[in-house]
Amino acid sequence: MIRSYTEPRGPSPTRPLPNTGSAGKLMYPAMDQDVNQNLEGFNVTLFLTETVGITAVLLMAIWISVYRGGYAWTSSPDLEFNWHPLLMTIGMIFMYGNGILVYRVFRGRRKRKLKIGHAFIHLMVFVLAVIALQAVFDSHNLKVPPTPNLYSLHSWIGLIAVILFSCQWVSGLVSFLYPGLHVSLRASYLPVHTFFGIGGFLSSVTAALLGLLEKAHFSVQVYQDLPTEGLLVNFIGMAIVLFTVLVMFLVTTPRFRRLATTEDDLLLQEDSQHKMLLPHHWD
Amino acid sequence: MIRSYTEPRGPSPTRPLPNTGSAGKLMYPAMDQDVNQNLEGFNVTLFLTETVGITAVLLMAIWISVYRGGYAWTSSPDLEFNWHPLLMTIGMIFMYGNGILVYRVFRGRRKRKLKIGHAFIHLMVFVLAVIALQAVFDSHNLKVPPTPNLYSLHSWIGLIAVILFSCQWVSGLVSFLYPGLHVSLRASYLPVHTFFGIGGFLSSVTAALLGLLEKAHFSVQVYQDLPTEGLLVNFIGMAIVLFTVLVMFLVTTPRFRRLATTEDDLLLQEDSQHKMLLPHHWD
Repeated sequence: MIRSYTEPRGPSPTRPLPNTGSAGKLMYPAMDQDVNQNLEGFNVTLFLTETVGITAVLLMAIWISVYRGGYAWTSSPDLEFNWHPLLMTIGMIFMYGNGILVYRVFRGRRKRKLKIGHAFIHLMVFVLAVIALQAVFDSHNLKVPPTPNLYSLHSWIGLIAVILFSCQWVSGLVSFLYPGLHVSLRASYLPVHTFFGIGGFLSSVTAALLGLLEKAHFSVQVYQDLPTEGLLVNFIGMAIVLFTVLVMFLVTTPRFRRLATTEDDLLLQEDSQHKMLLPHHWD
Repeated sequence: MIRSYTEPRGPSPTRPLPNTGSAGKLMYPAMDQDVNQNLEGFNVTLFLTETVGITAVLLMAIWISVYRGGYAWTSSPDLEFNWHPLLMTIGMIFMYGNGILVYRVFRGRRKRKLKIGHAFIHLMVFVLAVIALQAVFDSHNLKVPPTPNLYSLHSWIGLIAVILFSCQWVSGLVSFLYPGLHVSLRASYLPVHTFFGIGGFLSSVTAALLGLLEKAHFSVQVYQDLPTEGLLVNFIGMAIVLFTVLVMFLVTTPRFRRLATTEDDLLLQEDSQHKMLLPHHWD
């Protein structure tokens, strides 16, 4: 059976959308490849975004290597902890932000490839998050005496972010890639997926900043006198904030949206016809 | 001279928008009062939002009264500090969120009244933020020995939030209320105002959570064993997060947008004609 792996971009005679009120249709504006898209400022902002994001990761790596004793696994619980902030910054911040941007950055590619890319990047984020969580649980549990887990606001919000992210990944896969919901259901689910996708990203950023501050108070000597290490921690936080602002600008600016291609349209119609033959799909 | 105090809602023959590319016009969809707006779920979500927001403020007040010794002014720096989290939660979280929602909650009112309401609520937020900042600076400076100011990530992000908010207030007033920019410039500035307005709100929420966690580590005895006070602090954080999610849902759902009224249109045309007579406006 052929599947199309696309979702609708706008209401048209061939793709009516369910349950969209008069204002609801604003989310699915009629767009077409033929229209000249104003992408002024996109590439510069993207370059800045990547630069700031990589800077955040590098500053984090420098902090851990220079000031926090580097890395180890279970042999040294304190050093095992250090994987947690590094892998979370690489995964749940830098790669998560980039995963969201896939459709805008590679707008010329086939929709199905973009979806697979989006899912793959986020699968890698999930793997990094699992290792990062293992590192922090080990660092608490293997300590003598052990430190309690999941008591602070950082851990609560961080856990919510990871759970939300994981649920989004599974529901996104099932809805948009395999097996894929009926076109009309996909269209209804897309804004929910987007809202909680961005919400998960912002939760993740918040958790990262909470973790940074917590660790600074735990470990930076006389943080209140703002020594070099304290400044470094604050700059890592600032880099994460700036990266987030730039990602949000790129992702919320309507004129930067990827326009549906003629190919998307053709695949969508084909998909729609196939789906109508399947009794187990809600039509 | 008569001013209209409105901004355009969509491209129409009487109100062309400058510099909007093909995709750019999505931000100013053509809307009209006559169209039946689908507001299903708005009131329930709003009720939930207010309930959760008030809960966050009450929990904060309870925390300070029951566990943190209540309030004082300069006579007791430690207790003067306590005004900081309470006033920030009332102002920069609860009222800021509600200020953003004014156009959606009172959609039937005249646009000018809504703008004045929006500006007035945020003026009150600013006043509360100033008192809250005075409280925290006093509590540091009057302590013996004094505690340094503005060293932690909480203070950096909190200060950015307050400065961003204040700049937004002034530029919003100048652009949309008095003296008011030309219609076309207002239309260009509106998405910027919205982006940084929501950005300021999210920064403020992030700063609040950072402050909560910092204070929990400073003051809650054996926070890591999650005593009642620790749980209370975490629940305040959760209430703030939930309030934020609900505000963001209400403010980003396109079908909840206030539709332009016929009155808005008439005032806009009148305003546009007046502005064209002014040589110092960029036409």
